[in-house]
Amino acid sequence: MATDDTCCTRKGRGRPKIFDRNAMLDKAMMLFWQQGYEATSLADLVEATGAKAPTLYAEFHNKEGLFRAALDRYTARFSAKHRAALFCEEKTVEQALRDYLQALARCFAGSDTPAGCFLINSSATVSASSEPIADTIRERQTAQEQTLLTFLLQRQLRGEIPAQTEVKTIALFLSCIIHGMSVSAREGASVDKLQQIIDTTLRLWPLLINE
Amino acid sequence: MATDDTCCTRKGRGRPKIFDRNAMLDKAMMLFWQQGYEATSLADLVEATGAKAPTLYAEFHNKEGLFRAALDRYTARFSAKHRAALFCEEKTVEQALRDYLQALARCFAGSDTPAGCFLINSSATVSASSEPIADTIRERQTAQEQTLLTFLLQRQLRGEIPAQTEVKTIALFLSCIIHGMSVSAREGASVDKLQQIIDTTLRLWPLLINE
Repeated sequence: MATDDTCCTRKGRGRPKIFDRNAMLDKAMMLFWQQGYEATSLADLVEATGAKAPTLYAEFHNKEGLFRAALDRYTARFSAKHRAALFCEEKTVEQALRDYLQALARCFAGSDTPAGCFLINSSATVSASSEPIADTIRERQTAQEQTLLTFLLQRQLRGEIPAQTEVKTIALFLSCIIHGMSVSAREGASVDKLQQIIDTTLRLWPLLINE
Repeated sequence: MATDDTCCTRKGRGRPKIFDRNAMLDKAMMLFWQQGYEATSLADLVEATGAKAPTLYAEFHNKEGLFRAALDRYTARFSAKHRAALFCEEKTVEQALRDYLQALARCFAGSDTPAGCFLINSSATVSASSEPIADTIRERQTAQEQTLLTFLLQRQLRGEIPAQTEVKTIALFLSCIIHGMSVSAREGASVDKLQQIIDTTLRLWPLLINE
């Protein structure tokens, strides 16, 4: 599978079709984000991306392949940026967490992307027949809790969180709040509303880390 | 539309088909719960319920009608019980809240029903073409935050929450946690794991209500 920005596929005779892989993946990603994995058909993807069906098949083999590529695109465009907001050593633990949650809030409720989290929306209704995709999404989701745990352990080592605090429980709790923010956004909560949830979470922070 | 437990539909000649409406709705509810509204077809529902397609059409007109009936069935079987755990005047505010969250945790992660919240799963990927259903689900979901707000206002009147506390913010926060519990359950969190989230929430309660 090609990984550069543009690529060619040759179907029979004639000139090769050149298309912008990332622009196409962005459109596919938006559609999966809006509708979820299960409810998005290859016909929908052909229509949304403007690519020809044979081009999609040649490049991604099937819907699953296209979804995996869209997932990688999401990680590159969004997850990496969110992680950068969190793993910034110059910030206090609370500031880093606030920036991370605010970046997520803008992603979940901003007007540039569909409401909610791409991963949560996609996985919400993945059926038994799409078990490999469900597993992949679950792994990525688990990675988020792991990211929070890594962050908290680093900060605990720096003495910003008491040594006896069970950071695993805090990672689980914060992860739950992030999941909840996604659903709230999907139900129509604005960035301001999500900001209230973030403010409450940070207000509770001193007690959260002092068990 | 019949509202009693069993009903008859007559399709052409022959004996009327008698079916157990609630048992049928339970099966439809479980399927919507598992797969979401969008990804569940009438063919799936015919197969899952064991009812004949003409029977379903005669009784519910279309998928939307069947979903609305399943939603009412969910409210009667689950929501009413959860509310009862919350609105119990003999309990302290913290006990009532704990019982409510635990009832939800069992519903989201127990083995009798699909993982997650029926409403959240159903609405996660409702597309633009199903706007009336999306609105209905959104109303019911908003009702949950309203339920929490009503509960908190009652307890504030009883002096169990300081008069100056902004209970609306607390209802929003608790609602976010409930949404998050649903997603976590969907991702495989057990009742025990959700219990940890509930314990953390209740541990934070004194600070939560004292701004």
